[in-house]
Amino acid sequence: MNCCDRSGLMTVEEALEQLLAAAQPLSDTETVSLMQALGRVLAADQESPVDVPPADNSAMDGFALRFADCNTGEETTLPISQRIPAGAVPEPLQPGSAARIFTGAEVPPGADTVVMQEQCRWDDARVTLAADIKSGTNIRPTGQDIHCGATVLARGRRLKPQDLGLLASVGIAEVPVYRRLKVALLCTGDELVEPGEPLPPGHIYNSNRFTLMGQLQALGFDYVDLGRVADTPEATEQALRRAAAEADCIISSGGVSVGDEDHVKGCVEKLGSLDLWRMAIKPGKPLAFGQVQGTPFIGLPGNPASVFVTFAIAARPYLLKSQGASDYLPTPIPVIAGFSRPHAAKRQEYLRARLVQDAQGKVRAQLAGSQSSGVLSSVSQGNGFVVHRLGESIDEGNAVPYLSFSDLLF
Amino acid sequence: MNCCDRSGLMTVEEALEQLLAAAQPLSDTETVSLMQALGRVLAADQESPVDVPPADNSAMDGFALRFADCNTGEETTLPISQRIPAGAVPEPLQPGSAARIFTGAEVPPGADTVVMQEQCRWDDARVTLAADIKSGTNIRPTGQDIHCGATVLARGRRLKPQDLGLLASVGIAEVPVYRRLKVALLCTGDELVEPGEPLPPGHIYNSNRFTLMGQLQALGFDYVDLGRVADTPEATEQALRRAAAEADCIISSGGVSVGDEDHVKGCVEKLGSLDLWRMAIKPGKPLAFGQVQGTPFIGLPGNPASVFVTFAIAARPYLLKSQGASDYLPTPIPVIAGFSRPHAAKRQEYLRARLVQDAQGKVRAQLAGSQSSGVLSSVSQGNGFVVHRLGESIDEGNAVPYLSFSDLLF
Repeated sequence: MNCCDRSGLMTVEEALEQLLAAAQPLSDTETVSLMQALGRVLAADQESPVDVPPADNSAMDGFALRFADCNTGEETTLPISQRIPAGAVPEPLQPGSAARIFTGAEVPPGADTVVMQEQCRWDDARVTLAADIKSGTNIRPTGQDIHCGATVLARGRRLKPQDLGLLASVGIAEVPVYRRLKVALLCTGDELVEPGEPLPPGHIYNSNRFTLMGQLQALGFDYVDLGRVADTPEATEQALRRAAAEADCIISSGGVSVGDEDHVKGCVEKLGSLDLWRMAIKPGKPLAFGQVQGTPFIGLPGNPASVFVTFAIAARPYLLKSQGASDYLPTPIPVIAGFSRPHAAKRQEYLRARLVQDAQGKVRAQLAGSQSSGVLSSVSQGNGFVVHRLGESIDEGNAVPYLSFSDLLF
Repeated sequence: MNCCDRSGLMTVEEALEQLLAAAQPLSDTETVSLMQALGRVLAADQESPVDVPPADNSAMDGFALRFADCNTGEETTLPISQRIPAGAVPEPLQPGSAARIFTGAEVPPGADTVVMQEQCRWDDARVTLAADIKSGTNIRPTGQDIHCGATVLARGRRLKPQDLGLLASVGIAEVPVYRRLKVALLCTGDELVEPGEPLPPGHIYNSNRFTLMGQLQALGFDYVDLGRVADTPEATEQALRRAAAEADCIISSGGVSVGDEDHVKGCVEKLGSLDLWRMAIKPGKPLAFGQVQGTPFIGLPGNPASVFVTFAIAARPYLLKSQGASDYLPTPIPVIAGFSRPHAAKRQEYLRARLVQDAQGKVRAQLAGSQSSGVLSSVSQGNGFVVHRLGESIDEGNAVPYLSFSDLLF
């Protein structure tokens, strides 16, 4: 006689803690140019070799001068003694004169103030300055943004567009990054048919392969696509051996429930080891974590929405930490619920939701269609998850934690 | 005599309205497989050719039966008449029997209820069911998720991982998408030096090229990198002609202010037309919009943080609309300010901010370092913008609109 108990659920936090404790960051690195560095993870702190700005420079198009020469309380006219476009090396400023200067140009030695041209009238030889000039204005001092030697970005940073600009601004043209994590992906189930093929009775199309592939692509991982694996011990073992040999981590969908049609569990146990977790998560619940010949293995559930949720909430942080990233857990933002839900007694629920602005301009989180674990369309219709916390109820108007899909996909 | 007036600022909303009204969506399409479709924009509505699920199927591992056969108010034992793994085609259910069934498997004709195995004890021949079985449970009906012929995703959708799964789930293996928008990028300024090269006096490193390249890459556009263009009319004209010939849109940084070292303005006017807008945005302000030999031209400011902001707020929606996308304006989320700012009299300010959880678990937006237009490091330190609206002040504890960088970068 078989039997299953219903106790022993593991909270999402407990499961994440165990997963993250087991994640071994990569150590292999490579050097890439900034043009190829978007989304890659820095393998070393990046220190600035220069001051930014490298010298005092003008924040405006205008005139550089000594404040003492125009501190008269009325309009002052000064001769224009030089002209300093951006990129030029200025002469020291002659006392009693002004230098025509442009945004970004180096302030000439001796000048302490830049007057923006909106406060000036001028011709080729002379400039007349307004009466209310202030001392020291419109100069960006040397090192204002970054001091030479300062760490501009730390090891573990996943590089964003602005980071590429920041590295370029200190003269760094290439960076050491961890090689891309390689993830093997396999989907099990004899009922699965690839899209584009006819659908025989009793079958369904394989959607998990494409959801997971997209999630791996969006995060910038390399992957080995093992496709659908037939529900036989031989095919499963062959696929797992190949995955273990070629990849840094193996992700499967389906095949790790208690159902006796699942060969993944037995094969993983034969080739390595496996823990079956019953996570207090909905959609989701069964999550398997183990290793195949030393390569970490994460077994996700088989339902389409469960796959999306368990990948985003559990597998993503594990993979990002394994990739060497330091920032892998998203910060939930409190939003106001536009709906009510009863007490979540057993499982923390990740509700597919949209943020909607009502006629009064108030932003409310609304449910995005069916919350069934089999329904993927509501994931596409949503913009994020409202986290319905274990042991709590949601009343319309409550603040609830919201995780934007944008923060879970990249 | 030259002179500048300080009035005539255009609000961000007005500028966006004009930009978006001028955006001409692409019409060229191509067909790509789902594996290549992440981030691409659908060129046609996608209708489901099938019901999902295609037949009533089991939501659980368990036993399929007629409710009438076990509606006894006490434990019932039934013979097991067939075994239906996922993917198998079931026989009609023999009355007075149960079928062993697995998650995703088709429910046999005649069965109306699936009892999950947690409510059962069984051996090879018989199953004993708990007393409290409910009618009609654990069956996913035909078409529950998607009806045949329903539009699953509309033209203009930028495809996310879950969308690839959704398309696969209805059997769609390839999709028509708009070809990638091609954006030409040029940076002007004789003071600019490429990272990796020595920095002569009076010069600064070219960061805008890399920030913008990263932003274009993250959004999935093709680009033509024209690099730094020398501040001469000849070089500028040559670069603009090449950009107009090769790209769908031209983005420049620097070179469109009122400074007389800027040749971009004159060249664009010579080869096409140009409007110079003074946007009520900070950092930012000057934004140029026009065309070069019929190719749209957007001139961004030259300061590093201004470039990031004006691209994210103004150029991004313009380019996404030109790419054919229907969802190009991010939704601000209200968050609580952890800081105060005086009345924003002249310009709407995009404050670089971080969401920080305090000791009481409250999430507050905090400023992320210097808000100067020349400072890029605070963009890297931030997670998003707090929008300090024109004409308003911010008091600590106020709800303020927040735009996550994740929603502005992808």
